[in-house]
Amino acid sequence: MSERGWTLGTEQLTDLARGAALLGTGGGGDPYIGRLMVEAAIAEYGPITVISPDELADDEFVISTAMMGAPSVMVEKIPKGDEAVRALRALERHLGRSADATIPMECGGINSMIPLVVAAVTGLPVVDADGMGRAFPELQMETFGVYGIPASPMVVAGDHDEWVLIDCGADNSRVEWLARGACIRMGGAALIAEYPMTGADVKRTAIPGTLSLGVELGAAIRQARAGHRDPVAALRERLGGSIYRQLRVLHEGKVTDVERRVVDGFTRGTVRITGFNKPGDAARAGDLVISFQNENVIALREGQLLAVVPDLICVLEADSAEPITSETLRYGQRVRVIGISTPDLMRTPEALAVFGPRCFGLDRDFTPLEQLHPTAD
Amino acid sequence: MSERGWTLGTEQLTDLARGAALLGTGGGGDPYIGRLMVEAAIAEYGPITVISPDELADDEFVISTAMMGAPSVMVEKIPKGDEAVRALRALERHLGRSADATIPMECGGINSMIPLVVAAVTGLPVVDADGMGRAFPELQMETFGVYGIPASPMVVAGDHDEWVLIDCGADNSRVEWLARGACIRMGGAALIAEYPMTGADVKRTAIPGTLSLGVELGAAIRQARAGHRDPVAALRERLGGSIYRQLRVLHEGKVTDVERRVVDGFTRGTVRITGFNKPGDAARAGDLVISFQNENVIALREGQLLAVVPDLICVLEADSAEPITSETLRYGQRVRVIGISTPDLMRTPEALAVFGPRCFGLDRDFTPLEQLHPTAD
Repeated sequence: MSERGWTLGTEQLTDLARGAALLGTGGGGDPYIGRLMVEAAIAEYGPITVISPDELADDEFVISTAMMGAPSVMVEKIPKGDEAVRALRALERHLGRSADATIPMECGGINSMIPLVVAAVTGLPVVDADGMGRAFPELQMETFGVYGIPASPMVVAGDHDEWVLIDCGADNSRVEWLARGACIRMGGAALIAEYPMTGADVKRTAIPGTLSLGVELGAAIRQARAGHRDPVAALRERLGGSIYRQLRVLHEGKVTDVERRVVDGFTRGTVRITGFNKPGDAARAGDLVISFQNENVIALREGQLLAVVPDLICVLEADSAEPITSETLRYGQRVRVIGISTPDLMRTPEALAVFGPRCFGLDRDFTPLEQLHPTAD
Repeated sequence: MSERGWTLGTEQLTDLARGAALLGTGGGGDPYIGRLMVEAAIAEYGPITVISPDELADDEFVISTAMMGAPSVMVEKIPKGDEAVRALRALERHLGRSADATIPMECGGINSMIPLVVAAVTGLPVVDADGMGRAFPELQMETFGVYGIPASPMVVAGDHDEWVLIDCGADNSRVEWLARGACIRMGGAALIAEYPMTGADVKRTAIPGTLSLGVELGAAIRQARAGHRDPVAALRERLGGSIYRQLRVLHEGKVTDVERRVVDGFTRGTVRITGFNKPGDAARAGDLVISFQNENVIALREGQLLAVVPDLICVLEADSAEPITSETLRYGQRVRVIGISTPDLMRTPEALAVFGPRCFGLDRDFTPLEQLHPTAD
């Protein structure tokens, strides 16, 4: 293989962490610990090569690596460090085939970082793409699976040197069910290697460019702050040219209530954001309530739908636009809530059957953000 | 390999089921469903070859097969039928080595039968020995593990064609923890293949002769009934020449209370047996209380210890001596409760550290049955 891709160094990691927290749409785990892990891995093993899906040969072999668990646990239960690589190696041994690259399962939260740790330690390139285009709480909620790739065989590795290999044939929801059970018994967070596939599979099923997009969104926020411009305007500008396209400011206000619990291995709850009630902006006067299962699932203001999965609902610190994850929400925070439209590949009937509103127990169909808010703010 | 062993046919299965229910000491699951499975397998594939541990070559490869789960679930959730063989095959593929024989994990309850199903379907011989010498609720509670054999890699297979492979190195308690989690998510009962080992390992660590002992104990009860002799006396006679040696009648009475629940994948509870209060037998006048975790763990009469794990505590129908399993106990049953001493291999300090009273949360050391009751009844 000739030289390909570009080099990711520690200088881009802070931007990536911020951008990934945004794309994590409340979940995915705070990227902070992941960033420290990548920095340590780069310091020990050298920088990371990032390749675009187009640079993969069709017959190359790619394994997705990630952390799974409730974000509330993931931010407190620091990985031992070798679990993701052990998961990858165990899956390689089982399949009798070595990976040519790793790819993020989700581009949001800590899972923007875990594949980078794997890439640094193993020397494998990491593919600039992912299977969620954001963060989702469950393993079957991946475009890889939506478009026909089995999640299993897959491996869950814990911090006691133990690992579990799961094979459910083509039943990706059963993989989620069994892997979640293993994850819970490993302490609520574990590292995984899943969705083994070819380069051709990646090109057909992955959301492209989401790793570099994460870096760029994080940089856009940073640069806007430095230039005393509105970071949300900078985000809108950057997204305009991307496959995400639309951004809407949904609400501005103060966090007045947070209800949050860890149930069945997920962080579940709601946050209430009471509008600033600005003169002349009656629409933002009410209370916005966001429900989350790890990630923000739906935003309702006085019963009116403002945004729903799979579109992104992001809570940002009001002035700095720093993304606030679901486990760090707390009373008194001044926030802006934005919605971002997901790529077309995530809005097909097949995709909505796997991660549309009904998959989160909601009795409603998906309505695109730009249909709910026809004109930009 | 020259011809070896003896042939087990369907005619011995009813005796084995009864003997295994006795050795199941309340747990292990009712062998009834297992017996039907073996009968069907023999009808389709032919009879089963049983070999003694001594007939194994030291370098032959043996894999233990079994069902795991709460007995309350095991008697209601009928296996699909191919799970145990799928578990065995998955473990063989993972290890890159085919089994030369299978061996029971436990000789009590349904797990006397599952390896016979595997043997009939695969044509492998089944070893006349096991790793518990009775039934125990947890996978690390096996003499295989007590004497140095790792339980993992092992496989748990469910009835949706799914399977999970678990590797915890030498930590057999962690295998139990993760396998139990998988078993619960598979519906509370699943089939397993575990403790891969050599013929030399079997000879060193297994309790020998427990499959044929089960057949003989079942036959002894049947023959005594037919000859209008006391079945318990017949059991005592048969055990006298075995590695179990001692039998004591602990109590006779009526079941006056049963408290039973399925918790964390186990059937837990207590049974109260109010003594018949026979004239001249003041010692049996009180209430006997047996606590069980799948299996009967401890028998106390008015606070006085009568028997405790790993010795066997068996509840028998008073006249017929039919064993009553923990999930079929009910108010009004007339019963005799007997204690049976376990083989020496199960009473070493290493063994008691794994399945002695403290491993069941009891704050007491093991006291042998024959020390609690120096003279036979």
